[in-house]
Amino acid sequence: MNVAVMGYGTVGSGVVEILNKRGLCLDVKYILDLRDFPGDENASKFTKDFNDILTDTTVDIVVETMGGQNPAFDFVSKCLKAGKHVVTSNKELVAERGLELITLAKENNVNFMFEASVGGGIPIIRPLTFCLRANNIRSINGILNGTTNFILTKMIRENMAFDEALKIAQDNGYAEKDPTADVEGHDACRKICILSALAFGNHVYPKNVHCEGITKIALEDVANVAKIGAAIKLIGTTEKLSDGKIYIIVSPAIVLESSQLNSVSDVFNAVLVDGDATDEVMFFGKGAGKLATASAVVADALDCAEHKDLRRPIFWGPEKPELIADYRTVENQYYIRLKNVDKTAALAAFPGSKIIDGASDVSFITGKVTENAAVEIIKSLGADLCAMIRVAKA
Amino acid sequence: MNVAVMGYGTVGSGVVEILNKRGLCLDVKYILDLRDFPGDENASKFTKDFNDILTDTTVDIVVETMGGQNPAFDFVSKCLKAGKHVVTSNKELVAERGLELITLAKENNVNFMFEASVGGGIPIIRPLTFCLRANNIRSINGILNGTTNFILTKMIRENMAFDEALKIAQDNGYAEKDPTADVEGHDACRKICILSALAFGNHVYPKNVHCEGITKIALEDVANVAKIGAAIKLIGTTEKLSDGKIYIIVSPAIVLESSQLNSVSDVFNAVLVDGDATDEVMFFGKGAGKLATASAVVADALDCAEHKDLRRPIFWGPEKPELIADYRTVENQYYIRLKNVDKTAALAAFPGSKIIDGASDVSFITGKVTENAAVEIIKSLGADLCAMIRVAKA
Repeated sequence: MNVAVMGYGTVGSGVVEILNKRGLCLDVKYILDLRDFPGDENASKFTKDFNDILTDTTVDIVVETMGGQNPAFDFVSKCLKAGKHVVTSNKELVAERGLELITLAKENNVNFMFEASVGGGIPIIRPLTFCLRANNIRSINGILNGTTNFILTKMIRENMAFDEALKIAQDNGYAEKDPTADVEGHDACRKICILSALAFGNHVYPKNVHCEGITKIALEDVANVAKIGAAIKLIGTTEKLSDGKIYIIVSPAIVLESSQLNSVSDVFNAVLVDGDATDEVMFFGKGAGKLATASAVVADALDCAEHKDLRRPIFWGPEKPELIADYRTVENQYYIRLKNVDKTAALAAFPGSKIIDGASDVSFITGKVTENAAVEIIKSLGADLCAMIRVAKA
Repeated sequence: MNVAVMGYGTVGSGVVEILNKRGLCLDVKYILDLRDFPGDENASKFTKDFNDILTDTTVDIVVETMGGQNPAFDFVSKCLKAGKHVVTSNKELVAERGLELITLAKENNVNFMFEASVGGGIPIIRPLTFCLRANNIRSINGILNGTTNFILTKMIRENMAFDEALKIAQDNGYAEKDPTADVEGHDACRKICILSALAFGNHVYPKNVHCEGITKIALEDVANVAKIGAAIKLIGTTEKLSDGKIYIIVSPAIVLESSQLNSVSDVFNAVLVDGDATDEVMFFGKGAGKLATASAVVADALDCAEHKDLRRPIFWGPEKPELIADYRTVENQYYIRLKNVDKTAALAAFPGSKIIDGASDVSFITGKVTENAAVEIIKSLGADLCAMIRVAKA
């Protein structure tokens, strides 16, 4: 069966490499890229004209590894309408335009698959969609971005400031020159939006999700929470609340020692899914990397080949903005660090809170409280708020 | 679509519960069990006659949750031959008779699925078979039995002797009255055999695997390895060696602090798969439990329903006993504890070894050595061997 690969960057070239050497049932017929790759062993397959792929009826499966929304959306739409299966690793495309694309796929009775869009080579989309489907999913909490987890691990283990850790990540190729998408949480946000759609059945657009990166984390707080065995990680959360609303957020969070996410360090990713039948199950591994991500793309392509005439039921509905809870009104535990406050008064004002002995300033973990209420309490105490970080529930 | 459930024990009744309450596309038409369940809400569906199921052409999918090989093998074979898809949670059946059953399934163009046979509700069979198939699997290491992991966690954290920890496990329903299958490693052995077949393509019969349980683990060794942050766990390993042979073993193993398996405690299971594209990916969760295991069975049944006329490519070949390495000849690191030996002489005899400071007797982690060679060295030292435990490579 013939495959076309659109985008010959890191992931796309990994896909071609795996397909060439593994002797699978898939042959690469075209590689679409506007750049030239002199001396590349796949020279005969290159094209700069998308229409070569679109109009070739012997191409059944198209792999999209260009990244970005444009022209990826246009190309993928046209391929689906032409009855071709499409596999992508492009999380921005899925998070922003996924609803339109799965709808097009359904209308044209083809598959649109995106295992590689979350967690790189870690199996998560298919296990969540198929293996766990006898569950009602209660929540998903994930370390979804390896760059930020690497930086935070440096900050935790080596007491290194954010800027310095970022530089090391860049020097090692773990962070891009412009690290905004990673460190501001946008990449993690796209991924939690995709997982939320699969788990709870409605599209969530990244712009509607509260997203906070790791640039403002103070080493003081990293050290404080270490005293209770906890770690600060960038956590993407989507959770179904008892009133039916979805609590979806990307932000730094305190991961307690008892959590399986606590020991997930360096560039590793992990996704913890809590289902009503299975309880917590976790998927762990490297969330990026050429061959890892490419292997997930190839697995999807093989699935498409096997399901040439049978659509896999991957689907969700439109966004329901009214279902997205205001994160400031959702009860949670928080880590709080205050200055200019009486310790006893602070603890009394936050029932159920536990002081962190030996920490700087007045630092404690609260009982359940909303962010809005906590802010009011701190105001009434006349205290200076130095840090407030949610405690991850997983 | 109609389903028949054979065996109304813990898992089978969980399957019926999920199918009844989830409003899925599957209806339970028969429940086969020789026992009576007076007052059960599914009374109208019970039968004691397997032929009711076999001859009913409206039953497309049969769930086998009886356990054991007989009559499960006979019933499952007949169902497959009759063109019915079969889903099972029965690891003994898959490990001992899986080859015959997948062959029958293939011949009759139906599916034989067994996600629940390893790791309960944790997705592992399908991710390994489908999501990771663009990888060459290098090894699988797993904590595959919750009962023994619970007992070992008690020994590690509370310095509790094996017998006492076993009693608590039994009192809490985590261990059976006759705990042999768990504590002697037979249960874990069946599971690593199944994973090995899927990863490397040939059936491995449990009787051909070196299998050692946890009953002989001394608290002294638990305490010694804790000094370097390591833990003793019951680990099932299957690994492709550079000579093409398979190193497959179930035994206690030292799990170093750097391993993601180190923090897997209590009744939790985890399977670490090392692929040449993804590197290590891990699947974690509760490895047993009524609804968790039942949810995996139901997911398989739904997959069968979607693939009513399309076989999922789950297949492997016959055992090749010549491919199974003698574990005593495979190089590994070992934890060794010796008495009546000079420390310096012992360390000199094991190049690359690292003493465990503060441990009892002469305790150290070796460099790479085979078990056969290590035994010879210890003999030549005239030392008393108190403990020798392999170091898990994951």
